[in-house]
Amino acid sequence: MSQIIIDRINRIEALNQEVADQAQSHIDQLTKPQGSLGRLEEVAIQLAGITGETFPQVSPPGVLVYAADHGVVAEGVSAFPQEVTAQMVYNFVNGGAAINVFSRHIGGILHVVDAGVASDLKPVGIWNEKVRYGTGNFLHEDAMTREEAQRSVEVGIVTAERVLNEGAKLIIIGEMGIGNTTTSSAILSALTGFEAEQVVGRGSGISDQAWKHKVETIKQAISNRQPNAADPIDVLAKVGGLEIGAMAGAVLAAAANRVPVLVDGFISSVAALIAVRLCPKARDYLLVGHRSVEPGHVRVLEELQVEPLLDLNLRLGEGSGAAVAFPIVEASTRMIREMATFASAGVASGNE
Amino acid sequence: MSQIIIDRINRIEALNQEVADQAQSHIDQLTKPQGSLGRLEEVAIQLAGITGETFPQVSPPGVLVYAADHGVVAEGVSAFPQEVTAQMVYNFVNGGAAINVFSRHIGGILHVVDAGVASDLKPVGIWNEKVRYGTGNFLHEDAMTREEAQRSVEVGIVTAERVLNEGAKLIIIGEMGIGNTTTSSAILSALTGFEAEQVVGRGSGISDQAWKHKVETIKQAISNRQPNAADPIDVLAKVGGLEIGAMAGAVLAAAANRVPVLVDGFISSVAALIAVRLCPKARDYLLVGHRSVEPGHVRVLEELQVEPLLDLNLRLGEGSGAAVAFPIVEASTRMIREMATFASAGVASGNE
Repeated sequence: MSQIIIDRINRIEALNQEVADQAQSHIDQLTKPQGSLGRLEEVAIQLAGITGETFPQVSPPGVLVYAADHGVVAEGVSAFPQEVTAQMVYNFVNGGAAINVFSRHIGGILHVVDAGVASDLKPVGIWNEKVRYGTGNFLHEDAMTREEAQRSVEVGIVTAERVLNEGAKLIIIGEMGIGNTTTSSAILSALTGFEAEQVVGRGSGISDQAWKHKVETIKQAISNRQPNAADPIDVLAKVGGLEIGAMAGAVLAAAANRVPVLVDGFISSVAALIAVRLCPKARDYLLVGHRSVEPGHVRVLEELQVEPLLDLNLRLGEGSGAAVAFPIVEASTRMIREMATFASAGVASGNE
Repeated sequence: MSQIIIDRINRIEALNQEVADQAQSHIDQLTKPQGSLGRLEEVAIQLAGITGETFPQVSPPGVLVYAADHGVVAEGVSAFPQEVTAQMVYNFVNGGAAINVFSRHIGGILHVVDAGVASDLKPVGIWNEKVRYGTGNFLHEDAMTREEAQRSVEVGIVTAERVLNEGAKLIIIGEMGIGNTTTSSAILSALTGFEAEQVVGRGSGISDQAWKHKVETIKQAISNRQPNAADPIDVLAKVGGLEIGAMAGAVLAAAANRVPVLVDGFISSVAALIAVRLCPKARDYLLVGHRSVEPGHVRVLEELQVEPLLDLNLRLGEGSGAAVAFPIVEASTRMIREMATFASAGVASGNE
């Protein structure tokens, strides 16, 4: 493993339990029945443990959208042609995609990162960190080399730390890559042993027949490539994607810097799982924005043991579900910072 | 029924299906797989049908917190003493309660309405619409007269229209009233025939023994009062609450003015059910912020046939869960207004 990855993994510590306890104790004095703000209280306490601040801040969030292409689209696994990845990158640059709208909605610092789009992109408004021109078709060849897989993780580390230097207090990870539900399903199957049937969904919208073909493609690819479940970098190299490696790196960087990561849906959760397999302590730095329609997402969430904040039948990606969930996270920080206590407000506390 | 209530009921129309269809058609052209924004799309379409605007606006929201006291607290059904209602009203006025924090978070126009607190309140910062000094203990007497019940509904109509005149584009209803989960459970049981055991929860936090006592109190009260399920005003008068009548009135006023209502949790949903029983068309103007921990909430949601936006184990009231959900509603309006179309962005649409 490269030095930068090893270094970030080594810097990831357990949450600060003392500060988390202080946050819990303060929340219990606020003018409301104890525990009555449910998940909002849990989130505030987690954020306190992550940041080491009793009154954590999460604004502005950094919104990182990683784009890359997938050789496996040659097998006809997606409802959209590969060119759409690049077209959508330009849509991001022009501010017209869902993630642009939702990032503006939350005051996010949005950056689009080319981690491996298959064509040369006009450089304006894009962070160019292209590792290679799309992955290989992993039905027939490894998606990338082991070195490329590591470089994709490094892309995530470098870009996450760049947005932290710009002032981001939380990192939202999102992605764009035609074919990447296929890649994510393959990674998940390889890492967990779940059969393709159990994790493959309709992606951006495919028919029953196309679904069966997608399942068969993944089964055959895993049989052909034999990824090593105990070695996440091997899985990433053999059946992975460049934006997925990058998102895994962003998770490691955020955790190493004691910053919370708000994961989007299925694909970014698979990336988070890679990060957690590389460093189990990274798990405690995760929040998951929403429960995706993709059936594989439930499996990833079980592996991560993280409950998503929203369940709104979203399946778009780009970080959109995380951005829509962000106001809940921010509300939790405002609750602990701004609410009066029973003592300060002169309100009688309950008898239980 | 009083003229103002009859008038608002008569003004409530079906949603504008033509405009809702226009919104649907526009959403299907946005740069995302069709349907991939799930509930956000449904909400945007509903808002279009409510407002008659293809690109609806919901900001700023009006946040109305109705406070009142409940005679039934004499039976020991709450974890908090009755004085807390008035103390919390002052906490609202001073900006220290959860709803203050969350209303600021969403840029809300917040007003606290005294619909029937049991003591005289300092008038500063409160809309004084007191119908009476708390309800009667409905175990032994009617909660209020039929005239008072109608006046409580009128309080909601008048105050909702006042905040609309201040510029509110959506109305959030919330409440404060020690004992009001007991009242809400009694109303729900009376309106639907569910047994008290099926709808009674822990409120702000009571023991097993106190829960059994709460159930018995409600069963006995309904047996004593014999509220007429077909007459929502009779139910409100016999086992209701003044803030609950007011919230029902706010729903009617919002619907009559083609403005969406964002309901909070259990208690405000029961109020919404009263409004819907008075005028079934009002249902289509409702959004529900969150699924409460209170077991009765599931029953109300089934009656209303509305799915809540959030499920975060909240049980605070005050409108807090609605305010936390509001950014989702606003995100849906920004999606339809701000996203690029496939044509405008030069993105290829999917092949299915």
